Amino acid sequence: MKEIALPLLDDDHPHDECGIVGIFAPNENVASMAFFGLFALQHRGQEAAGIAVANGFTIRLHKDVGMVSQVFNVTNMEPLQGHYAIGHTRYSTTGSSSLHNAQPFMVETMHGPIAVAHNGNLVNSPALRQELLQRGVGLSSTSDSEVITMMLAGARGSTWNERIRSVMKKWVGAYSLVILTRDGVYAVRDPWGFRPLSVGLLPGGGHAAASESCALQTLGCVAIREVKPGEIIALSKSALTVQQALPPNPRQAACVFEFVYFARPDSIWNGKNVHEVRQRLGRQLAIEKPAEADVVVPIPDSAIPAAIGFSEQSGISYNIGFVKNRYIGRTFIQPTESLRQQGVALKFNALPTIVRGRRVVVIDDSIVRGNTTGPLIRLLRDAGAAEIHMRITSPPILHPCFMGVDMGTYDELIAHRLSVEEIRKLIGADSIGYLSLAGMMEAVGSANGYCTACFTGKYPVPVHHRLRKFGFDLQENEVDE
Amino acid sequence: MKEIALPLLDDDHPHDECGIVGIFAPNENVASMAFFGLFALQHRGQEAAGIAVANGFTIRLHKDVGMVSQVFNVTNMEPLQGHYAIGHTRYSTTGSSSLHNAQPFMVETMHGPIAVAHNGNLVNSPALRQELLQRGVGLSSTSDSEVITMMLAGARGSTWNERIRSVMKKWVGAYSLVILTRDGVYAVRDPWGFRPLSVGLLPGGGHAAASESCALQTLGCVAIREVKPGEIIALSKSALTVQQALPPNPRQAACVFEFVYFARPDSIWNGKNVHEVRQRLGRQLAIEKPAEADVVVPIPDSAIPAAIGFSEQSGISYNIGFVKNRYIGRTFIQPTESLRQQGVALKFNALPTIVRGRRVVVIDDSIVRGNTTGPLIRLLRDAGAAEIHMRITSPPILHPCFMGVDMGTYDELIAHRLSVEEIRKLIGADSIGYLSLAGMMEAVGSANGYCTACFTGKYPVPVHHRLRKFGFDLQENEVDE
Amino acid sequence: MKEIALPLLDDDHPHDECGIVGIFAPNENVASMAFFGLFALQHRGQEAAGIAVANGFTIRLHKDVGMVSQVFNVTNMEPLQGHYAIGHTRYSTTGSSSLHNAQPFMVETMHGPIAVAHNGNLVNSPALRQELLQRGVGLSSTSDSEVITMMLAGARGSTWNERIRSVMKKWVGAYSLVILTRDGVYAVRDPWGFRPLSVGLLPGGGHAAASESCALQTLGCVAIREVKPGEIIALSKSALTVQQALPPNPRQAACVFEFVYFARPDSIWNGKNVHEVRQRLGRQLAIEKPAEADVVVPIPDSAIPAAIGFSEQSGISYNIGFVKNRYIGRTFIQPTESLRQQGVALKFNALPTIVRGRRVVVIDDSIVRGNTTGPLIRLLRDAGAAEIHMRITSPPILHPCFMGVDMGTYDELIAHRLSVEEIRKLIGADSIGYLSLAGMMEAVGSANGYCTACFTGKYPVPVHHRLRKFGFDLQENEVDE
Amino acid sequence: MKEIALPLLDDDHPHDECGIVGIFAPNENVASMAFFGLFALQHRGQEAAGIAVANGFTIRLHKDVGMVSQVFNVTNMEPLQGHYAIGHTRYSTTGSSSLHNAQPFMVETMHGPIAVAHNGNLVNSPALRQELLQRGVGLSSTSDSEVITMMLAGARGSTWNERIRSVMKKWVGAYSLVILTRDGVYAVRDPWGFRPLSVGLLPGGGHAAASESCALQTLGCVAIREVKPGEIIALSKSALTVQQALPPNPRQAACVFEFVYFARPDSIWNGKNVHEVRQRLGRQLAIEKPAEADVVVPIPDSAIPAAIGFSEQSGISYNIGFVKNRYIGRTFIQPTESLRQQGVALKFNALPTIVRGRRVVVIDDSIVRGNTTGPLIRLLRDAGAAEIHMRITSPPILHPCFMGVDMGTYDELIAHRLSVEEIRKLIGADSIGYLSLAGMMEAVGSANGYCTACFTGKYPVPVHHRLRKFGFDLQENEVDE
Repeated sequence: MKEIALPLLDDDHPHDECGIVGIFAPNENVASMAFFGLFALQHRGQEAAGIAVANGFTIRLHKDVGMVSQVFNVTNMEPLQGHYAIGHTRYSTTGSSSLHNAQPFMVETMHGPIAVAHNGNLVNSPALRQELLQRGVGLSSTSDSEVITMMLAGARGSTWNERIRSVMKKWVGAYSLVILTRDGVYAVRDPWGFRPLSVGLLPGGGHAAASESCALQTLGCVAIREVKPGEIIALSKSALTVQQALPPNPRQAACVFEFVYFARPDSIWNGKNVHEVRQRLGRQLAIEKPAEADVVVPIPDSAIPAAIGFSEQSGISYNIGFVKNRYIGRTFIQPTESLRQQGVALKFNALPTIVRGRRVVVIDDSIVRGNTTGPLIRLLRDAGAAEIHMRITSPPILHPCFMGVDMGTYDELIAHRLSVEEIRKLIGADSIGYLSLAGMMEAVGSANGYCTACFTGKYPVPVHHRLRKFGFDLQENEVDE
Repeated sequence: MKEIALPLLDDDHPHDECGIVGIFAPNENVASMAFFGLFALQHRGQEAAGIAVANGFTIRLHKDVGMVSQVFNVTNMEPLQGHYAIGHTRYSTTGSSSLHNAQPFMVETMHGPIAVAHNGNLVNSPALRQELLQRGVGLSSTSDSEVITMMLAGARGSTWNERIRSVMKKWVGAYSLVILTRDGVYAVRDPWGFRPLSVGLLPGGGHAAASESCALQTLGCVAIREVKPGEIIALSKSALTVQQALPPNPRQAACVFEFVYFARPDSIWNGKNVHEVRQRLGRQLAIEKPAEADVVVPIPDSAIPAAIGFSEQSGISYNIGFVKNRYIGRTFIQPTESLRQQGVALKFNALPTIVRGRRVVVIDDSIVRGNTTGPLIRLLRDAGAAEIHMRITSPPILHPCFMGVDMGTYDELIAHRLSVEEIRKLIGADSIGYLSLAGMMEAVGSANGYCTACFTGKYPVPVHHRLRKFGFDLQENEVDE
Repeated sequence: MKEIALPLLDDDHPHDECGIVGIFAPNENVASMAFFGLFALQHRGQEAAGIAVANGFTIRLHKDVGMVSQVFNVTNMEPLQGHYAIGHTRYSTTGSSSLHNAQPFMVETMHGPIAVAHNGNLVNSPALRQELLQRGVGLSSTSDSEVITMMLAGARGSTWNERIRSVMKKWVGAYSLVILTRDGVYAVRDPWGFRPLSVGLLPGGGHAAASESCALQTLGCVAIREVKPGEIIALSKSALTVQQALPPNPRQAACVFEFVYFARPDSIWNGKNVHEVRQRLGRQLAIEKPAEADVVVPIPDSAIPAAIGFSEQSGISYNIGFVKNRYIGRTFIQPTESLRQQGVALKFNALPTIVRGRRVVVIDDSIVRGNTTGPLIRLLRDAGAAEIHMRITSPPILHPCFMGVDMGTYDELIAHRLSVEEIRKLIGADSIGYLSLAGMMEAVGSANGYCTACFTGKYPVPVHHRLRKFGFDLQENEVDE
Repeated sequence: MKEIALPLLDDDHPHDECGIVGIFAPNENVASMAFFGLFALQHRGQEAAGIAVANGFTIRLHKDVGMVSQVFNVTNMEPLQGHYAIGHTRYSTTGSSSLHNAQPFMVETMHGPIAVAHNGNLVNSPALRQELLQRGVGLSSTSDSEVITMMLAGARGSTWNERIRSVMKKWVGAYSLVILTRDGVYAVRDPWGFRPLSVGLLPGGGHAAASESCALQTLGCVAIREVKPGEIIALSKSALTVQQALPPNPRQAACVFEFVYFARPDSIWNGKNVHEVRQRLGRQLAIEKPAEADVVVPIPDSAIPAAIGFSEQSGISYNIGFVKNRYIGRTFIQPTESLRQQGVALKFNALPTIVRGRRVVVIDDSIVRGNTTGPLIRLLRDAGAAEIHMRITSPPILHPCFMGVDMGTYDELIAHRLSVEEIRKLIGADSIGYLSLAGMMEAVGSANGYCTACFTGKYPVPVHHRLRKFGFDLQENEVDE
């Protein structure tokens, strides 16, 4: 294993689990396309990346710990020849950043080799895992994605569509998958539609699938559409072969947090442009939780569209209040005591010329653990802000996510422990306002069809008690390659 | 040498040469402070970094190719113990990213060891170089910073202040320096004041110097002031020891491009906040080159403050028109032909919901080679923009810089080759407007004291003919470590 | 995958597959012991190494491509805490040096985690592999060692002894194994006794197992004995727990080539010291194939003991005729044409002062592909040797090995293609003499109980037709981590 | 700097400083030849390596920490195009293995670029160093090789021959040099002839120089001869251009320790084959210090020829008594306490079948610090040896070397602290016998012309008091790249 340091200066944000891509391009070097597709999904995971390519006969895979541009070079891309590819970029939910858990997973099966890349989390994985172990299948990681892969290896049926469908029936929870066989690529989405997955037509022929439409745009795709819940789509040259493998679950559960924070603003999620929804979240927030103020500033970068929306709605002028160091990295270097007191100032500086003597509305998308908001507000105070009105474009996060997002545990969630007023005091704002659930859904444009469990605790699927207790961290043994 | 790939997806921007820091902290681990200081200056150079630390007796140095967070780890920082430090982060002007040219440079001299970090460029370095060679000094790089170091090694005088002063007299051009001796740190700025350098008081005692005030803020400094042209400042515990070594040159020549593009918006340059000046550049542009339009969008990130200013002045609403991939990296991976046609779309996507059917003002800070503006405009057209009005917050760049900035050669500068109307046609805008020189200086707040040679060709100092001819690229021999 | 270059300068020798160690030490850091044990077995494989350590609850594993001293460092050893360990050092039989095939293999099973390290080769692995795939087990490598691991994962029984025994029944071929559970280490040897495995009592308490007794000596072991064919030995503190799991096969098949070449001269193999046997092979050769000569020289290093024996028996004085570059390494650097003509001279020089004008007997242990013997003889001629009498301490190698040694294919074996006289001509010797099979077994001390299939083609077990056809190279898909 | 671990298991031997090569080959890729030449000199230094190549106009250099095969790969060799090359492989005398001290050194001078590789040590370097510093030359290492390089940079004269000669006059001590200019290679040897350097004609045209003739043989050279003391030889296509720059010093001082230990047995040193001299050292030892014994065994590898000689002279049979782990490496892994008690047994095993019940003569070339001989004797006792008679093929080492060999300081030299009888007791031998100085010179074949200062303290040149006091370790500042 390469040593992976802690993020140089981290945000207080939930972490998504993964970005995936799948490509069939009959006339092109698919590995390079998978590379640039993953690069466009880098925001969904920066800890490991992998690409598997099939040439009709065999599959070749390269994966390693690191960001996409670090993992791949000309030498290790060279053997990845073929017209079928999948790729994966990973955010590790546990502390372990081992190569061992990097995806895609690849195995030889009785039906030939397969490789699998997964975004999401099965809430019944502990039970499925036991089933596999009892069947005598040794598992080399604790990842539910390996469970998925091994179940596919043991699936019965005369085609991959049949085999995929037969195991989908047993999976409960979030799974957006791309599956590579020696001569095919399949895009699969769970019946609840938890996590995003889209497909599009490549300009040079063939199709691509990706977690977010922004990656398909990067690849020049047209005719982009989302894979529908319960669908298996086989990528092919001319037309997509679409199978409604399982009926869409009556309770659709698209992750609302993709709008709030995860997705890139240029992506379409559940039919809507993310930037536009965020701008509407800001407008709605200005309606619900107005403030008497002189300037609206976002916490960069995710809150920018909402701050613009808030400014438009409220008539309060928009400006930049914080400058953020763009150079995201990781380091083991410890700040000295005096630097530690600087806290977020190592990453952000406030702009006195903008905030001095002014009443400032600060827009952020969410407060998870609550450890950075206070210091940011202090920066504004030190820069001379007269009043600080914190506005959040989502309701308080009260519950963990078990569908593939690392929100933190109950103990870690500040809104689970403190009231809104207590949070206001803690962070030192003059006022605080969260967007209401109804307001958020209003801005999203629909009250139904979304998973809002992190706000409401109403999980769309029953969560296995071991997951409830330990979260994702079932890790016991560890391989360090 | 580590292999250094080309930037994953590059901008059309000039490149600054370096960021430097100097620290004396009697009670703290200075290496760690230098690390976080350099991290705040990472935008000034991403190709190599180094830190030298003195403990009263000896100097220890670590430098390598890579970004600050890649170059340093706990192991290589461990020996860097002491209370005096300097650091450097480098953008390579030539193709060579060799460790060999990484700074600080360190040599033993008859007066003990010194280490030197330099931002700028001496325009008489070819002549100084010949003098050194004739004196029998072997030079192991073609860097003018090694010339500076070797001249310091041979300088006469009874104190370092005297010795530094004696060689300053011979230096023509841009030099902001930090110099480390076994028990001292000196901050030096050329009499023209070309490139920035500031000092501040550290919260835990001692002082710090840095290319930009933003880095001093990151370190928690107070009482920040710029090193004045011609000054040598010795950092010490209580008071700074300031010597006006040379009189400030009557023709002050602060780089105006620091305002336009280089400096971080939270820095103070020549007494003014950079964000504020940029916002004024936008306002001035709206006055000089107005447009009938529906929305103002910046090319991220440097044009954001100007776009806000343009919006305020013109009353045209501000929004985000482009989403940029935040994950800056480098790669050797070549895009396929179809990806190559994507061009800037590999890095930027336009937001159709913002620009569709609208007349769009696009703000950028400069057009250097002109290879990215056209494709960005095409992205807007493809996203449905009705009209596109390009507005640039500086005049056309007509001349190379020889004072430490890689602007490109005459042949590379698009405005040197084409008229403004030809540029408009080439990039496919409906209109184009550059800010006038007078307008730019109006926004800056002063018509005098700045170097505007890249716009006017009026170099504040005579440039050696070899530099004129070859630019920085005097490289002949090459060490690859 | 790390790039692995071709051996800098290779020998014409068969390659053994692996060295394994297992350790239970109740009072010590077993990872460090496993490291030094593997280091003593480095001659059995230089392409990858791994150590797994159990602490009573979980297993932690580190493995990577490279030699033992390259793979392990203080950082990656640190997590390997516990009193139970196994280790593996690997020679890759195929071209692929991927981390993917590095051992130990580790999986979670229904009975807890296990890790497995294997030396040998199952001749029925293609069939066993199909059985696993049909059972729905996905296989992530083509290694028979993964087949062994997955069969253990699915084995039934109430104890590990029972479970190991139940699958041993199905395994045909060579397997010396060490198996790690969360609180135990098992040493297992196939009923034919193909490949070596010994156990000994550690000086500080506990026991160790290793492919060769030399490694146990390195660890300071006493009471060293070989694991008997068909035995499962559980390492424990006081006494070893020995189970005769399967009866020893009536046709014992200890690899005679361990004496000829593989084993370190200080090891005991099948009850006999390897150096002593080699010296006897030399004596026997002097009896069978005498030569009129002035000096006996070995091809270093493996033929040294035999050359001493030949000298003693024949009365011809012993000396060093070749100097070999000790610095074994790997490189991608290609020799130029003129260097290529140097051939073995890049690795060996002859000593003119020893051979000039003399009749020289040259002793080697074997000729496999026959590409280095000729050039070595030419070196002697160039150094002035009057006559050259080649003597080989084993019979001609006529058949591949399917029990875990890379002898090469039929096409590659020179003695399969050419007669002895043709070989003599090809290599340019004045005479050539191979030891007879009977003479070799005489020197070994027993005509029975050994596998001599590479000389005779009489394989002690039936070899699966796919192995016969393709050798080990069943590799289809490839992971490059 | 790469982390460099301590040798995995070290010998008690002095360490030579360097191996050097120089090549001019008008028709070939010289970089590859330099690589294989250095590879043949790897025994002279394993800590860093470098190759510089000139193409008539410029010089390109690659150097790094590590063994030759680790430092060079296809990528970093690719730019090294040209017909002139020098190379260096280094043993670091101080603890510092920094890249900073790696050679060749390269500088631009008033006469064009030069690169220099040096084996030896100037005993007046502290004074020369001061001269340079006073002249205003900054020095970036404490290596005397940089002093040599900088003096060459400042040398006056109209040709390189003149310039080299002019500074040679000031150098006192050991220097075998290869100097690369943009279109020439010079081989230079000090007038005392301390350290070896030979030249030969390349088979494809051109010439090569190397520290030892074995490397020239590896390159296929013919007409090999030693560079004579005081000569400057310019390598050229047809004939060598030889200049007797300085008269050979009347007191010739060829290092006798090259015979005893350093040189490869296949090299010619001062006109004599090293293997042959070593064999004679063994014969002489058998005459001077006979023993009643049953078997003669060498400490591998350097004592093998002498043990053969001792056996021949004494009639006592020769055999292998110790097996040594061939896999030399470096590691940070610490042995456990019980492993530490194993001591040399981690590297050597004794062969009981050879020594049990026998009286054993053990041959070694020297005892420096005396820390390994005792443990080796204990191994023999444990293996059952009846008597142990230690015989050393050189006299006791009583004095440090200041001419480029790391013998250790006075305090470290066991023979400086203890009498021969005390040493015998300490190591636990039944008898001990050192070869006499006269006997050694008898075996060498000449009483004159050699430096024997480590045995006699009679240094052929006056040693600067700072060197006397501190040895080589003048290191003050440190660069870690």
